[in-house]
Amino acid sequence: MSYSVAVAGASGYAGGELLRLLDAHPEFAIRTVTAHSNAGQRLGSVQPHLRSLADRVLVETTPDTLAGHDVVFLALPHGASGAVTADLDESTLVVDCGADHRLVNDNDWAAFYGGEYFGAWDYGVPELPIEAGRKQRDRLVGATRIAAPGCNASTVALSLAPGIAAGVIESTDIVSVLAVGPSGAGKNLKLNLLASEILGSANPYAVGGTHRHIPEIAQSLRAAGAADVSISFTPVLVPMSRGILATSTARIVPGTSAAEVRAAWENTYAGERFVELLPEGEFPRTADVLGGNVALLGLAVDEAAGRVVVVAAVDNLTKGTAGAAIQSANIALGIDESTGLSVNGVAP
Amino acid sequence: MSYSVAVAGASGYAGGELLRLLDAHPEFAIRTVTAHSNAGQRLGSVQPHLRSLADRVLVETTPDTLAGHDVVFLALPHGASGAVTADLDESTLVVDCGADHRLVNDNDWAAFYGGEYFGAWDYGVPELPIEAGRKQRDRLVGATRIAAPGCNASTVALSLAPGIAAGVIESTDIVSVLAVGPSGAGKNLKLNLLASEILGSANPYAVGGTHRHIPEIAQSLRAAGAADVSISFTPVLVPMSRGILATSTARIVPGTSAAEVRAAWENTYAGERFVELLPEGEFPRTADVLGGNVALLGLAVDEAAGRVVVVAAVDNLTKGTAGAAIQSANIALGIDESTGLSVNGVAP
Amino acid sequence: MSYSVAVAGASGYAGGELLRLLDAHPEFAIRTVTAHSNAGQRLGSVQPHLRSLADRVLVETTPDTLAGHDVVFLALPHGASGAVTADLDESTLVVDCGADHRLVNDNDWAAFYGGEYFGAWDYGVPELPIEAGRKQRDRLVGATRIAAPGCNASTVALSLAPGIAAGVIESTDIVSVLAVGPSGAGKNLKLNLLASEILGSANPYAVGGTHRHIPEIAQSLRAAGAADVSISFTPVLVPMSRGILATSTARIVPGTSAAEVRAAWENTYAGERFVELLPEGEFPRTADVLGGNVALLGLAVDEAAGRVVVVAAVDNLTKGTAGAAIQSANIALGIDESTGLSVNGVAP
Amino acid sequence: MSYSVAVAGASGYAGGELLRLLDAHPEFAIRTVTAHSNAGQRLGSVQPHLRSLADRVLVETTPDTLAGHDVVFLALPHGASGAVTADLDESTLVVDCGADHRLVNDNDWAAFYGGEYFGAWDYGVPELPIEAGRKQRDRLVGATRIAAPGCNASTVALSLAPGIAAGVIESTDIVSVLAVGPSGAGKNLKLNLLASEILGSANPYAVGGTHRHIPEIAQSLRAAGAADVSISFTPVLVPMSRGILATSTARIVPGTSAAEVRAAWENTYAGERFVELLPEGEFPRTADVLGGNVALLGLAVDEAAGRVVVVAAVDNLTKGTAGAAIQSANIALGIDESTGLSVNGVAP
Repeated sequence: MSYSVAVAGASGYAGGELLRLLDAHPEFAIRTVTAHSNAGQRLGSVQPHLRSLADRVLVETTPDTLAGHDVVFLALPHGASGAVTADLDESTLVVDCGADHRLVNDNDWAAFYGGEYFGAWDYGVPELPIEAGRKQRDRLVGATRIAAPGCNASTVALSLAPGIAAGVIESTDIVSVLAVGPSGAGKNLKLNLLASEILGSANPYAVGGTHRHIPEIAQSLRAAGAADVSISFTPVLVPMSRGILATSTARIVPGTSAAEVRAAWENTYAGERFVELLPEGEFPRTADVLGGNVALLGLAVDEAAGRVVVVAAVDNLTKGTAGAAIQSANIALGIDESTGLSVNGVAP
Repeated sequence: MSYSVAVAGASGYAGGELLRLLDAHPEFAIRTVTAHSNAGQRLGSVQPHLRSLADRVLVETTPDTLAGHDVVFLALPHGASGAVTADLDESTLVVDCGADHRLVNDNDWAAFYGGEYFGAWDYGVPELPIEAGRKQRDRLVGATRIAAPGCNASTVALSLAPGIAAGVIESTDIVSVLAVGPSGAGKNLKLNLLASEILGSANPYAVGGTHRHIPEIAQSLRAAGAADVSISFTPVLVPMSRGILATSTARIVPGTSAAEVRAAWENTYAGERFVELLPEGEFPRTADVLGGNVALLGLAVDEAAGRVVVVAAVDNLTKGTAGAAIQSANIALGIDESTGLSVNGVAP
Repeated sequence: MSYSVAVAGASGYAGGELLRLLDAHPEFAIRTVTAHSNAGQRLGSVQPHLRSLADRVLVETTPDTLAGHDVVFLALPHGASGAVTADLDESTLVVDCGADHRLVNDNDWAAFYGGEYFGAWDYGVPELPIEAGRKQRDRLVGATRIAAPGCNASTVALSLAPGIAAGVIESTDIVSVLAVGPSGAGKNLKLNLLASEILGSANPYAVGGTHRHIPEIAQSLRAAGAADVSISFTPVLVPMSRGILATSTARIVPGTSAAEVRAAWENTYAGERFVELLPEGEFPRTADVLGGNVALLGLAVDEAAGRVVVVAAVDNLTKGTAGAAIQSANIALGIDESTGLSVNGVAP
Repeated sequence: MSYSVAVAGASGYAGGELLRLLDAHPEFAIRTVTAHSNAGQRLGSVQPHLRSLADRVLVETTPDTLAGHDVVFLALPHGASGAVTADLDESTLVVDCGADHRLVNDNDWAAFYGGEYFGAWDYGVPELPIEAGRKQRDRLVGATRIAAPGCNASTVALSLAPGIAAGVIESTDIVSVLAVGPSGAGKNLKLNLLASEILGSANPYAVGGTHRHIPEIAQSLRAAGAADVSISFTPVLVPMSRGILATSTARIVPGTSAAEVRAAWENTYAGERFVELLPEGEFPRTADVLGGNVALLGLAVDEAAGRVVVVAAVDNLTKGTAGAAIQSANIALGIDESTGLSVNGVAP
C-alpha cells in the first residue's frame, strides 16, 4: 500500500528536505510537486541534489493541484497555508511545515506574527510530554491536520519539557542561546543571509525577546505542566548550512539532587527512537545529526550555578521540520512511526 | 538472505561512512567492527553520528577478528591491508578502501608509495570504460578481492575516460585542479588539518606532480585506451568537511565538433545510475552530492581554448570511497548494484 | 624612542598575533622571537602570513634569550611563564598572555588549573570598572608585570561589569553562552580541533561549570562590586577561525527601568576607544571585529524575561589576547594607549 | 600634506575595503563617502566593521558630491563610472575599481561586457612586466585616470607574466582554475551567493570560457610579450568570504631547465614588496594574505607534465582591488608606493 503525496513549496529548503525523505519512504509515493515562481521548472535545476527526482516538473501551488492526494505536505511562506488548505478534503492528511497553525493562542499569533489567525492544528512533536504522563504522540493518532513545529521551538521544548513535567526545574527563568545555520531562514534573498556576511562570523539576531518561536516554546512547556514560563531566547547565526545547537538552562528546584534531575530526562526519553539523551559527560554536535531525524541531548547539572544545562543538537530541516512532519504523518496514518526515517547523521 | 560483514578501521572517516551505508543496506549485516587505538570503545563515543550502532564495541583489528565473515571491508592506513588479509579465506569478499592494491605497476608503487608491494586487485570503479566498449563493472562480477579507488583518482578518471575511450580528447596534456575537503586526508593529527588552518582559507598541497593519485589516474586512462598520459594535478584544501570538485581539462582532438565531444560522455554514461552527465549549461556543486553515491559531471567545450572542461562533484567518502566499495561488493556478490545506495545528496 | 621587544612563544596563534600588531607599532622594535620545537626555523615558514618578518629566525625560549629587552611578551603554554620570568630584571615590562598570573585566589587556581601557583599580576583589561568609579586602567600605569586576560573571560566581564558596578543587575544568576572559534584553543594537535570535526558543526565543550575562565570572570565582577557571583557558562566551538560572540544575560534588579539599565553601560564606556556600546537595536558580529582591538557590545532589555541581554563580539586573538597585551603595555609605559592599535575589523 | 579623498560606492565590499585602508593611510583624508540606496545612512550601520568611521554619513553618488577632491575612488557597478567621471576635473586623480576602463580593445568589451565602451585607463597593476624590461609601474607615474584590475585577472596575470616575458613558457595553452570567495561577486542579492548555497560546498561558475576576466588576462600577457594567448579559465566559489587561490599552469618552452624557469619569476619580482615568490617547496594559502596588500606565489616545475604550476594567493578585496587601487594612487601622486599598505595577513 502506498499513499499518494503532494509537496507544496517544493523549491525551498524545507520542501527539498521533504522530497529527499519522502523519496526514501516506502509507503509514500510523491505524485505532485508545486512551487510558485519556479513553476514549470524541472526539479533537477531547482533542487540539484535530488537526482532521483530530477525530471519531475514543478506545477503551480493551487487548491486544484493539491487536491486528490492522500497526504499533502505544505512548505509555504507563513500566511500562505490557509488559502490552499481550505478546499482540501477533510479526510486528506495535511501537514503544515509553516507557522500558521502552531499557536493555540490568538493573542500570541497577533503579537508575534500578525495577520489573519487560522487556528491551531495538532502539534507535530510526538515525544513532548503533556499532562498525566502522556505524550503529544497520542494526539497525533488519526489526526488529519498537523502543524510541524518551528525548528528552534521544538529543540528547546524537547530540551526542557522533561524537567518541567517532572517538577525538577523551574520554568520562570529559562535562558536559551542557539547557534543556528542559515537554512532555517529559508531560501530568501536577504542581505544578512549572503555568504559573505555569514562566512567566518557569528551573527546574533532577534535579540531581546522578539523571536517568533518564543510563544511556541512557552506553549509546549505549559503543556508539559509549567504554570508560568519566562524565557530569554537568543539565536546566533553561525557558518554551517544546517543545524541547531541549543544551550538551554533552567534553575533546579531547590532540594533536588543531580541524580533526580538526570532521571527526569532519562525516564522521559527511554524508549524514544528519535530523541536521545547521551550518556553522562557526552554532549552532541550538530554534524552528528546532519540529515538525521534525531534530537540528541546532553545534560549537565551545574551545582555551583544551581542550574541544569541541556545542550541539544538538531538538524533544523530534518528532525526540526521535514522529518518531524513525516514522523507525525506516520503516526497519524498508523504506519510504524520510524518508517523512512534514519537516526544516523552524515558526518564528518 | 543477509551477508555477514566486518569493517576494519571503523573509527576513521572512511570506516564511519562504510558503517553508515552498511547499516541502511538490506543485504548486509554488520557483525564486527574493529579498530586499533580505539579498540574497547563504544561506537557511540567514537562515531557519535551513528546512533543506530552506538552500543557496538570496537574490537582489535586482527586476522582472527576479521575471519569468518562473508564480506570484509578494510579502511586501514596504507600498508596495513596485507597483514590482515593474508589469512582470510579466499572465498571471502575483501574490499580494501586503502591504496595497497590499486596500482598494477610496481614501479608506480615504489615511486609514489614505497614499501612492500602487494599486487593489484580488481579496481572498484564500475563505470570506467575499458577496452572494446566494455566497462570495469564486468571485471567485478564474482570478484573476491576488490580495491576501492582513491577518491581524487576515480573522480578525475570518470571525468575524462569517456573522451579518451571515444578518441575525442588527447591524453597527453591533461590538467586537473581539485577543491577538496579535509576528510579525504583522514582523522589524522596533522598541523595542516587543524580547523584554524583551514577555516577561511584555500590551501594547496602536493603541488607539482607529487600526489599519489596521479599514477592511479594514468592507469585508468590507459585502461580506457590512452597510449600516453600526462597530467598536471593540483589539489587544494578548502573549508568543507567533505567533497571533491574536480576541474579537469584536456585538449580536444583537432577536427572534433563540440557535439561529438559531448556525445562521448553522454554515450558512456547513458543508463548509469551513479555517474551522471548534467544537461548542457549545468555544472555540479559538492553540496549536491553530500552523502550520495553519485558522481555528477558538467561539461563545456571551450572552443577558444581548444579544450574540454569537465567539472565533477563527488563526495570523497561516499562515491569516492565507501559507496564505491559497497557498489562494487554488490556487483561482486550478484546483488542489484544499487542496493542500499542513494543518488541523492543532503543539501543545502 | 623605541622599546626593544621579545616575543616568547612566537610560533603559536597568540604569538603570531602579537608579532602582527607589534610590527605595525611605531614604538616597539621586535628584537627577539622565541619558540620551542620550532627554534631554528624561519618565521616565514612557521607564520607564513607575516611577510614583513619572514626572515627572522626563531631562537629557543630561555631566560637568556629573553633577557635584556625593555618589554617581554609571553605567549607560552599555561604553567611555563614562571620558569622564564623569574630571572628577568624587575624593571623589564613582562606581559603574560598565558593564564599563570591571572587569578588572585590560589584556591581558584588549584580548582581550575592545578600545579604550582605563581601569584597574580596586574590584570590587563583597562576598561573594567573597579571600585569607586575607577577603572583597571589606573592599576596598569607603571606596572611591570601584567597578566593579559583570558579571551572569553574578558569578553564576559566587559559585557556585565557596568551593570554590576551601577547596581542595576544581579550577579547571582548570570548565564553566558559563547560561540567561539578554534584558534582560542591554540595550535594544538587535538582530535576535536581537526577541521573535519569543526567544519559544518557547532560543538559544545566544558559544559556544566568546568571552564577555566569561570573564576576569572567572577573575580572581575567582584572587582566591579559584586558580592556573590554565580554564572552558568557554556562555550560552543563554531566554524570560524577567530572570534567570540558572547551572549550574556543577568536578571535586572527589580524596579530598574530599561533606560537606567542602558545608561549603566553608556556611562561606563563613554569615551572608551576599544570598548563600544552599539546604538540601541544594533548587535555586533564577530566578522566586524576580526583583527581589530575592540569589543563591540549590543544590549537589549527583555522585560518579559526580566533580564538584560548583552551580546559582545571580540576577536579572541586581538582584543581578547594580543591587542589587550599591547594596549596594557602602552599604558604601563606611558605611551598613548591607542598606539599601534586599530578599532577596525577586516570584513567581510 | 594630505590629499582629500572621495569614495563612491562606499556601501559595497570594495568600497568598505577602500575605506578600511584609506583610514589607515597617513596621506589621505577621507572627506566624502557616497552610495545609492544607502545614501543618508550612517556608515556604522552599513559597514559596521569600520568603527573609526561609524559616524560618517553616506551621500548620494553624483558628479557634484564627487567634485572638488584630490582623489576619487570609484567602487561602482560596472557601467556606472562613465556618468560620474565625465564632469570631474582632469587633474583629479580618479581610480576606478570597476571594469569600465580596463579593456583596451573595444571588441573585447563588446564580447564580454557589452553596452557603451568608455575606453581604457592606465592599468593598476604596477608589478606587471611590460615591454623592454619595464613594468606597468612606469605608466602610472603622474597618471590621473587609473583602472584598478579585476581581482582574478591580476592574480593570474601576475602568476604567469614573468614566464611569458622571459620566454620560458608558452602562452597558447594556459589553464587556470581558481578557488574564490563570494565577496568578489559583491554585495548582491543573488541566490547563488546565499550562505546556505555556499557553506560546505564548492560551486563552479562561468565554466567554459565565458568569464569576463579572460580578455583582461590575455591583454596583460600580451603586454608582457605574448603573441597569442589561449587560456582555459574556471573559477570555483568556495566557503571563505575573501580570497583567491589561483592555480595556473603553462607549458614550458622545450629545452628550458627548471632553474631557468624559476629564475624568470625570481628576477621579475626581486625587490617587489607586494608580489613575492615563496621559497622553493613553499606554496601560499589565502588565509596568509587576508587583508594584506600582497600576492604570494609558489612555483613548481612538473617535468613529467612539461608544465610550470604557479599557485597564487591574493585577497580579492585588498591586493585584488582596493589595495591595488591605493598602491597605484600612491605611485601616481609620487607618494612612497607602500604608504598605508601592509604585506601582512590576518591569520589564522
